[in-house]
Amino acid sequence: MTYCVAMKLDKGMVFMSDTRTNSGVDNVSVFSKCHTWTFSGDRVITLLTAGNLATTQSVVSELDERSKAPEDRLSTLAGEPTMFRVAQLIGEVLRDVIQRNADTGQRADSAFNATLIVGGQIGTMEPRLFLIYPEGNFIEATADTPFLQIGETKYGRPILIRAYDPGMSFEEAIKLLLVSFDSTIKSNLSVGLPLDVQIHEAGVFAPRPSFRIEANNEYFASISDGWGEALGSALSQLPDFTL
Amino acid sequence: MTYCVAMKLDKGMVFMSDTRTNSGVDNVSVFSKCHTWTFSGDRVITLLTAGNLATTQSVVSELDERSKAPEDRLSTLAGEPTMFRVAQLIGEVLRDVIQRNADTGQRADSAFNATLIVGGQIGTMEPRLFLIYPEGNFIEATADTPFLQIGETKYGRPILIRAYDPGMSFEEAIKLLLVSFDSTIKSNLSVGLPLDVQIHEAGVFAPRPSFRIEANNEYFASISDGWGEALGSALSQLPDFTL
Repeated sequence: MTYCVAMKLDKGMVFMSDTRTNSGVDNVSVFSKCHTWTFSGDRVITLLTAGNLATTQSVVSELDERSKAPEDRLSTLAGEPTMFRVAQLIGEVLRDVIQRNADTGQRADSAFNATLIVGGQIGTMEPRLFLIYPEGNFIEATADTPFLQIGETKYGRPILIRAYDPGMSFEEAIKLLLVSFDSTIKSNLSVGLPLDVQIHEAGVFAPRPSFRIEANNEYFASISDGWGEALGSALSQLPDFTL
Repeated sequence: MTYCVAMKLDKGMVFMSDTRTNSGVDNVSVFSKCHTWTFSGDRVITLLTAGNLATTQSVVSELDERSKAPEDRLSTLAGEPTMFRVAQLIGEVLRDVIQRNADTGQRADSAFNATLIVGGQIGTMEPRLFLIYPEGNFIEATADTPFLQIGETKYGRPILIRAYDPGMSFEEAIKLLLVSFDSTIKSNLSVGLPLDVQIHEAGVFAPRPSFRIEANNEYFASISDGWGEALGSALSQLPDFTL
């Protein structure tokens, strides 16, 4: 399993992903599920991946290969004119990779599935954020649904619904996301530290360097420890029930 | 879908269940999923149900029928000597009902499945709480895992993990459960008000009357509204992240 969230803010976007991949419970590895491309100062694109690792790595490699050989006249992340077209391109690559494996006669093509989140900004256009399904189609985050989750989405969703605010600073958004990830990690063994974080500042085409919150990160520990106590006092703040 | 929780406390047990049943999104009804039996002042048993409504109603009716005709020498809720044997009885009835439908040639026997929680106390023995699977086998709540959930369990789980304390009063437990149900209701359309609540006080064999928290309940509204704000202040209580 996996847990990834991307969030639209007034100031830009924040992406967070865990790094645990597993096949069963005893074949566990660390792989980054967050990939960022920056092109010639006019676009920045970040991709979060959930699902079959062979599929998601193939998608990322295919996108990379195309970017390196634009003379092949294939669509590239650098060449698409809008984020909508970028989402279409990634959706097509994803569908093709899944299909390629399913076509070998393997029946369980759902086992090759993956779901992606892509967000970014091109030139003077608005930043846009999409969730891409294994079939290659996609939905876009809007003001009504300003954050997208993939993977094990349920445990960490209530706090996002309650506490998200588009006016948040990047720091506040990261704190909120860490609480959401902590709730998920506490309940699902297949989601685990370290966590990758990427920030896009709106209108800035050199993304801030991504960073990793390691298993021994003191701030994460303080959030994880402090949240139980904070919830206790939040509960006691609510009016008492009387039988 | 459904959401039911049963919780062991030092003082006894609390059971809460939603009442929404649905087949698709446009065939929605209200049915109680909480059933309590009290027998001759020496035992009280409460059953929570999730899954196929035809199955769970059959299980409850079969248990009722047996209790009315004990001369048939079938096992009854009133006759079993321990809560372990009660759980075995209910597990057998559940398995038989599922099997009976599956045997008619319908392939999709998973569609007839149901999962149950049963808790209660007999005489001077300790109160015990079990989760019964469709196969009829079961697990028991212990001090390490003192609450059991069935149905749509994920959204409401993090708050239970964080805030449960065996020393809670019944009032505090109900407040906590309402927050857990509110998080679930906000995220899953197939879980809905009203909610049924049943309390077992340890060593008391006339259970408190069960009660229902209706859709227009003012206390629930105050919890639902207040929780967003309380979470906000809980978040701000945590140390700030610095980039």
